[in-house]
Amino acid sequence: MEKLQIIKIGGNVIDSEELLNSFLFSFSTIKEKKILVHGGGKIATQTGNKLGIVSKYIDGRRITDDDTLELVTMVYGGHINKKIVVQLQSMGCDAIGITGADAGLLPAVKRSVGEIDYGWAGDLSAKDIPAKKWEMFLNANLIPVVAPLTFEKSGHLLNTNADTIAAQLAMALSDIFEISLIFCFEKKGILEDVNNENSLISKLDENKYENLKKENKIAAGILPKIQNAFISRKSGVKRVMIGNSTELISLIEGSGGTSIIG
Amino acid sequence: MEKLQIIKIGGNVIDSEELLNSFLFSFSTIKEKKILVHGGGKIATQTGNKLGIVSKYIDGRRITDDDTLELVTMVYGGHINKKIVVQLQSMGCDAIGITGADAGLLPAVKRSVGEIDYGWAGDLSAKDIPAKKWEMFLNANLIPVVAPLTFEKSGHLLNTNADTIAAQLAMALSDIFEISLIFCFEKKGILEDVNNENSLISKLDENKYENLKKENKIAAGILPKIQNAFISRKSGVKRVMIGNSTELISLIEGSGGTSIIG
Repeated sequence: MEKLQIIKIGGNVIDSEELLNSFLFSFSTIKEKKILVHGGGKIATQTGNKLGIVSKYIDGRRITDDDTLELVTMVYGGHINKKIVVQLQSMGCDAIGITGADAGLLPAVKRSVGEIDYGWAGDLSAKDIPAKKWEMFLNANLIPVVAPLTFEKSGHLLNTNADTIAAQLAMALSDIFEISLIFCFEKKGILEDVNNENSLISKLDENKYENLKKENKIAAGILPKIQNAFISRKSGVKRVMIGNSTELISLIEGSGGTSIIG
Repeated sequence: MEKLQIIKIGGNVIDSEELLNSFLFSFSTIKEKKILVHGGGKIATQTGNKLGIVSKYIDGRRITDDDTLELVTMVYGGHINKKIVVQLQSMGCDAIGITGADAGLLPAVKRSVGEIDYGWAGDLSAKDIPAKKWEMFLNANLIPVVAPLTFEKSGHLLNTNADTIAAQLAMALSDIFEISLIFCFEKKGILEDVNNENSLISKLDENKYENLKKENKIAAGILPKIQNAFISRKSGVKRVMIGNSTELISLIEGSGGTSIIG
């Protein structure tokens, strides 16, 4: 099977002009087929403040009301997505920016209202992703740059976690490509001690993960990333790595960061 | 040759929820291959006011400084583009939103600074548009929804008039498809008397156009649209129509609006 690199970058990389430029340059040098999934970052909050749209949070999760959806559509789907696309194009990468609605590439379901109403938040599942359509784009040597927005077919965009999109997309394409799924953030990888970059765990299996959780050694913010990593690893994704955006090439080569052992 | 409908809608249609919905429904019923090019509208100015970005104009033309480019990228490329895409998807149209940077579909040149510095304004030419790539999207039964943004390969988005994009794109694809280029706006078509909707000119050739201009009967705002219409008509575009967005189907059938005779 042909190789496909699916790489996710988070808000901290996007917020820094220097980190983003340097990451995109590394990304542009990858020879295999590739997809970039990007998160949000502080620009959404900053732009929201100027527009008088103040994001509500419950248990650390953003509630996506009408105004917030409009905001993230503009900032994630417009500002950030196009900024990345145009930079990649200038580096010789034939990038194409997409949200989930474009070509129906990421259909999802609005999260049902339980104790919390998350508003326009979407949950997506690998089985609903049109893999053949993604394959068509990739075989045309296009490089999809994916904003963290999915959509429901009744006619609405939905706000969706970028880690989840990367993981479900990797699973959806794992029958067609040999996939490396790489989560890039500001740490070297999963750390035994979150304050000590020398405590990198180079291989993480579920036993070790459960132990670390029991000992409260895993920062709450990284839990969804690790859970997504294990889910995708168990569903046919060949390699899953977590590490620093400045070490993208080492992560691809398997010589840096944390390797998730399914 | 297979038929292709290239349809442009302007800001007045976009500003009205009702007009936009009804237009998109008519658009969704078109059986032939199709492309939608959309303009801006008041949302950009409104959002700009909230963000403290006040557009500057010289001779009625917007000057695109850094802040304005960021604004139109968010509003045209994010808000408006995705709103249209998601609505078309809900109507069963496999729409894909693009700016000129996406897949490098609309390369352009930053307007050189003469007496006026237009800032990040882009001029594009049919000969630079990658027709084969557009053909690939259309042959995959995708429906491109194009925001009025082009890009220069050195790495910058550019603000470009939507009428010009529609016209140059039609010319670029006229070797591959039999094209109808349809400019939709809020009037029935070109009028002898701009205040009288009963004074529709059903066929406009260059002689008549020059006479109307001499008599000062053509509103300044519509001049670029008519010039674009004549240019494309003379460069291989089969049919060019100008008319009301509520009469899209009549315009396609040639039974309404103004037909431009090249």
